[in-house]
Amino acid sequence: MSNIIEALRQQFPDKNALQPFVDANHNTPWLNDLTQKHERKLCADLQEAIVKSGLKDGMTISFHHHFREGDKVINKVMDTLAEMGFKDLTLASSSLMSCNAPLVKHIRNGVISKIYTSGMRGKLADAVSHGLMKEPVQIHSHGGRVHLLQSGELKIDVAFLGVPCSDEFGNANGTDGKSRCGSLGYAMVDAAFARNVVLLTESLVPFPNMPASIVQDQVDYIVQVEEVGDPAKISVGAARVTSNPRELLIARSAADVIEHSGYFKPGFSIQTGSGAASTACTRFLEDRMQKQNIVARFALGGITGSIVDLHEKGLIEKLLDTQCFDANAAASLATNPNHVEISTNVYANPTSKAACCDQLDVVILSALEIDLDFNVNVITGSDGVMRGASGGHCDVATAANLTVIVAPLIRSRIPTVVRHVTTCVTPGESIDVLVTDHGIAVNPARPEVAEQLTAAGLTVMPIEALYARAVALVGEPKPIAFHDRIVGVIRYRDGSVIDVVRQVKEDDE
Amino acid sequence: MSNIIEALRQQFPDKNALQPFVDANHNTPWLNDLTQKHERKLCADLQEAIVKSGLKDGMTISFHHHFREGDKVINKVMDTLAEMGFKDLTLASSSLMSCNAPLVKHIRNGVISKIYTSGMRGKLADAVSHGLMKEPVQIHSHGGRVHLLQSGELKIDVAFLGVPCSDEFGNANGTDGKSRCGSLGYAMVDAAFARNVVLLTESLVPFPNMPASIVQDQVDYIVQVEEVGDPAKISVGAARVTSNPRELLIARSAADVIEHSGYFKPGFSIQTGSGAASTACTRFLEDRMQKQNIVARFALGGITGSIVDLHEKGLIEKLLDTQCFDANAAASLATNPNHVEISTNVYANPTSKAACCDQLDVVILSALEIDLDFNVNVITGSDGVMRGASGGHCDVATAANLTVIVAPLIRSRIPTVVRHVTTCVTPGESIDVLVTDHGIAVNPARPEVAEQLTAAGLTVMPIEALYARAVALVGEPKPIAFHDRIVGVIRYRDGSVIDVVRQVKEDDE
Repeated sequence: MSNIIEALRQQFPDKNALQPFVDANHNTPWLNDLTQKHERKLCADLQEAIVKSGLKDGMTISFHHHFREGDKVINKVMDTLAEMGFKDLTLASSSLMSCNAPLVKHIRNGVISKIYTSGMRGKLADAVSHGLMKEPVQIHSHGGRVHLLQSGELKIDVAFLGVPCSDEFGNANGTDGKSRCGSLGYAMVDAAFARNVVLLTESLVPFPNMPASIVQDQVDYIVQVEEVGDPAKISVGAARVTSNPRELLIARSAADVIEHSGYFKPGFSIQTGSGAASTACTRFLEDRMQKQNIVARFALGGITGSIVDLHEKGLIEKLLDTQCFDANAAASLATNPNHVEISTNVYANPTSKAACCDQLDVVILSALEIDLDFNVNVITGSDGVMRGASGGHCDVATAANLTVIVAPLIRSRIPTVVRHVTTCVTPGESIDVLVTDHGIAVNPARPEVAEQLTAAGLTVMPIEALYARAVALVGEPKPIAFHDRIVGVIRYRDGSVIDVVRQVKEDDE
Repeated sequence: MSNIIEALRQQFPDKNALQPFVDANHNTPWLNDLTQKHERKLCADLQEAIVKSGLKDGMTISFHHHFREGDKVINKVMDTLAEMGFKDLTLASSSLMSCNAPLVKHIRNGVISKIYTSGMRGKLADAVSHGLMKEPVQIHSHGGRVHLLQSGELKIDVAFLGVPCSDEFGNANGTDGKSRCGSLGYAMVDAAFARNVVLLTESLVPFPNMPASIVQDQVDYIVQVEEVGDPAKISVGAARVTSNPRELLIARSAADVIEHSGYFKPGFSIQTGSGAASTACTRFLEDRMQKQNIVARFALGGITGSIVDLHEKGLIEKLLDTQCFDANAAASLATNPNHVEISTNVYANPTSKAACCDQLDVVILSALEIDLDFNVNVITGSDGVMRGASGGHCDVATAANLTVIVAPLIRSRIPTVVRHVTTCVTPGESIDVLVTDHGIAVNPARPEVAEQLTAAGLTVMPIEALYARAVALVGEPKPIAFHDRIVGVIRYRDGSVIDVVRQVKEDDE
């Protein structure tokens, strides 16, 4: 051996770095051990996986939120990290929910010092809005999160990814096993970007568990756990089938807008959010697609049972799925070959080599507030407290050819159409049409859309008229009292700062 | 906007790098243009794609060899690069074949100055073996190639990947379209590692061409071309169904060895190469699997029609496929849900987070030479000239539980069993059994295997006896005359140097 290397180095001095062969398994020692060969990734418990991952104080950990309000991983891992004495961690979860209220204590105790998330709700959001954290929370869109990973601002040291099933090498999916969440679109990104990936799996199935959503060459350690999530709670606070007459009115009106927008033709594409009105809109579109013999090429984004229904009726050819909003969607992903799981990089990252949202014709989105410039707030409530998520809102709003916001004009005596949004998440230039239960407004930047709708007999009014109607009904809302202190930074999909969230004043302040 | 950023920077000076929002498409300008939105990756011709890729002299370009002897991409791209005046390129093809003879002129003219490949054949290999290149060719295994990419020794600037079909965003596969090569396992790695990816596609199909093997977020430019390969030539020089009695004898004997090795039980796994004897062995195993009610869990690696046949008969549950060796395999990948495409990183990279070959029970491999220490040569012929490929040989040989070499004792009056291999590709410690048409030898490091085979009534002899028999039949081969000059470096799968290839002396030298 040594004479070979010597000859090589003599003839080619630039190849000095090449090393001589030692033995067959010099760099793969596990191949000398029949147990290690199979089980080198398996950990007896979460603690062991955390130790092996090399996690240190000050590092960044990540999670996905596919189980939404049913998640059983985030709180459990954070409790374990707290018990183990970790401090000063950056928590980068694709989103956070009401179920994550227990994180408040870990922030208070210094276990978590920074947060990146698409949104937050409930007691955690309330505490953060009232100044719990020293560092402002970074709120990103789903596409924007991948951009932050790609740009290096967000570097995940250890990703803790809950999955319903995995084999001993880490081939995992969300469609087999007991607790099925369906698409692992967020987790796929973390698996690709994290330095170290720990899978928490409910069931351990024989190799090869393929095709896999998270693939063995992305996984470092595997821990079998009792439960990773309750799929029944995935749809809590999200997609639900509505019988509320106001929501049905909005949904039907949105279907009218889509039908006459100029984009409703064979091969069109659509994304509907998880809101009640947009889900209901799907049902109103069905009739019109049937009657006019229109088949959509694809539906994108978070997928609901209503969309699956259209797919199975042959009205939508392909479903490109980053997130299943209910059990029907998860079941479809497991069985329908044209229901395809995609990562959020493929879905909506603006600096990905291509994002599917760029191909979208029509998207229906919701809003907590929309202002006279069509700017949309989906993060803070009328009290200034965070209670929502950026999600894919700004990603698809700017990318789609027709962006329709559906919202009631007034919620609990609070206007949705306002003079200025409390927090701007999606800029007005990305919004084309607003559909409320009191009328339709079209962004003046899209006169041709207004013309088409008017020509079809729909009544289009200036957004100022909707605003005036809201004020007439419930009065101008009282301004929210904020401190100067910034508690949240709203990052646009390209990483830029589009707004900030200020600390809310207590009623007695 | 500016006051928001100012407040943020004032309160959090460490966030000075954050930029203010400009407008919705500031970093995605193509979204302002309905044509660009869809067509920004499409190039009118290969020249345009090359210019846009930013390729410069001295850079590294890559190709896959899924079309094997039918490839129409490598020579065409190299011709174009030569016409455009490029010099001093490093050519990193997953392998090179006889069809690549036209590359000789590009080496001579300085267009190509370095080569990384799994192997070479024909006139190119002949010229290189006789000293064509200043730099020695780096010969790697399929797994080892990914390791070199991962370690950074090999950095692909532009990958030129031929595919039968793609959409306008670059979602591509090898199973639809006219010229189907099946698995794109090599190409998947290049798509993941290359800085810039140019797809050459025969057909351009509507978005979304999903699920995809090469995904849109990996692709920079797309060129539609007349042809990317002739699938009829994929099996040339590789898998063929043999009726040669000597090969059938070896195949049956190898099946005997596998049956009685201790690894032939329900749930076992197997890889067969593309050689005639190993392909034939598959057929002999079928009977025994049927009779003994044995179903294999998976077959791995390059997949042949014979393996597909066992899968479709229910005798192999899953096929994990890096490369389809014939049209039947490609057709199966398109239709059988348990025929799964895997990248070579997932297949065999020793420093991947997990390689499937580590799960292998039995592998059948071929050899040009095997010596008394069981070292195997699959790269140089008896004349010292390169005429083969490293392939996955050393990857699976060391990883599998039982590695069987099948080879005729003598080929064209040249012994296969030799005192010392001309070139060592796979170390003897990785080889367990040699099956020839003159008998079976077991590596002394595996006495338990020898015992099992003997107990089953098979005749096992020392490899020295096979060597003696070969010499008795055709005499000791004349030593090959080499220059000192190194023309090839054999890299073991972990990147280390296991051997070198020296320049062959002309007959009249």
